[in-house]
Amino acid sequence: MSAETKATNIVWHETTVSKAERESVNGHRGFTVWLTGLSGSGKSTLANMLEKTLWERGVRSYVLDGDNVRHGLNKDLGFSPDDRTENIRRIGEVAALFTEAGVANVTAFISPYRSDRDSVREIMKDGDFIEIYVACELDECEKRDPKGLYKKARAGEIPEFTGISAPYEEPEKAELVVDTTNQKPEESLAVIVDFLDSGGYLSA
Amino acid sequence: MSAETKATNIVWHETTVSKAERESVNGHRGFTVWLTGLSGSGKSTLANMLEKTLWERGVRSYVLDGDNVRHGLNKDLGFSPDDRTENIRRIGEVAALFTEAGVANVTAFISPYRSDRDSVREIMKDGDFIEIYVACELDECEKRDPKGLYKKARAGEIPEFTGISAPYEEPEKAELVVDTTNQKPEESLAVIVDFLDSGGYLSA
Repeated sequence: MSAETKATNIVWHETTVSKAERESVNGHRGFTVWLTGLSGSGKSTLANMLEKTLWERGVRSYVLDGDNVRHGLNKDLGFSPDDRTENIRRIGEVAALFTEAGVANVTAFISPYRSDRDSVREIMKDGDFIEIYVACELDECEKRDPKGLYKKARAGEIPEFTGISAPYEEPEKAELVVDTTNQKPEESLAVIVDFLDSGGYLSA
Repeated sequence: MSAETKATNIVWHETTVSKAERESVNGHRGFTVWLTGLSGSGKSTLANMLEKTLWERGVRSYVLDGDNVRHGLNKDLGFSPDDRTENIRRIGEVAALFTEAGVANVTAFISPYRSDRDSVREIMKDGDFIEIYVACELDECEKRDPKGLYKKARAGEIPEFTGISAPYEEPEKAELVVDTTNQKPEESLAVIVDFLDSGGYLSA
């Protein structure tokens, strides 16, 4: 049996499709655009616009955000510091899988802790992790308050709300910063797409 | 600001790429082939052969297995019944994300509990989850023992080893069964590909 087992093992290695092979056939890189910023800064809006724009250019794109992660993979997690860390750790691991699968992955999570974002960066290959700080003044985020969360947080109904009663640690080494305080989503999107284009991410 | 917020919300909905749209452009369905069976039954071998075969047919395929999940996303989990359940729950959620992203996802995990596999089936849309029982007689798995795990389990070095000291619950409603006890991987693979082909999974 040992000869057959060895043969099977050889088959295993031969049959794996590598990231490089995927990128070559797909015509673009596999990578993760990691959007970080306050609630209301525009992360989800930008993520979905980016997914669509890349998709229309023939790039295999996919968004991970609260809608498809918080109620599924991470539904057992709350918003305590430990749970936030575990939340980001798992999302980072899933983003790494999508990246390895050759997908242009876009994540949209507040991800307030620098160390958590750095840990995600560490599990990715150099250049595969693109941290983009979606900056926006707190006043403006609170004015937008698309989900009414700031109002609830101010009323004390949401504990540990980032920017109000929990910290947000600004990126120190983000690949890119877009400031949406006075910028339309379309303008921020153009800056991001230009960054990916000139960085060679959209061609193989 | 509220008008602008509403406008932004509209953009959000318009910019999401749907699964149907992905399938239409990709030319094939997004789905999960869930391989279940004893250690040594051939799940990983078949998963990787299937990934490669589908890939060569232009189908976007990706394997989730112990190699890329147990040391990453689920590195905090052991092999107790509770941890096995959480292991499969998370893998199921990730498989659902890949499926939603339009990928032909193939998972290769023992997944010994029927209720855990059924829970994964429940989070997928009808028809997206294809449970394939990779059957193989225990004697044969133990004879193959590609990772030397049965030997260690028999020596008492691995507690709760499926088939030896922990249960394996055979599927009762698997979409397909392949028995690798006396079948070569290439033959089992052909049966699986034929199933996917005739089920319309490989065309859109």
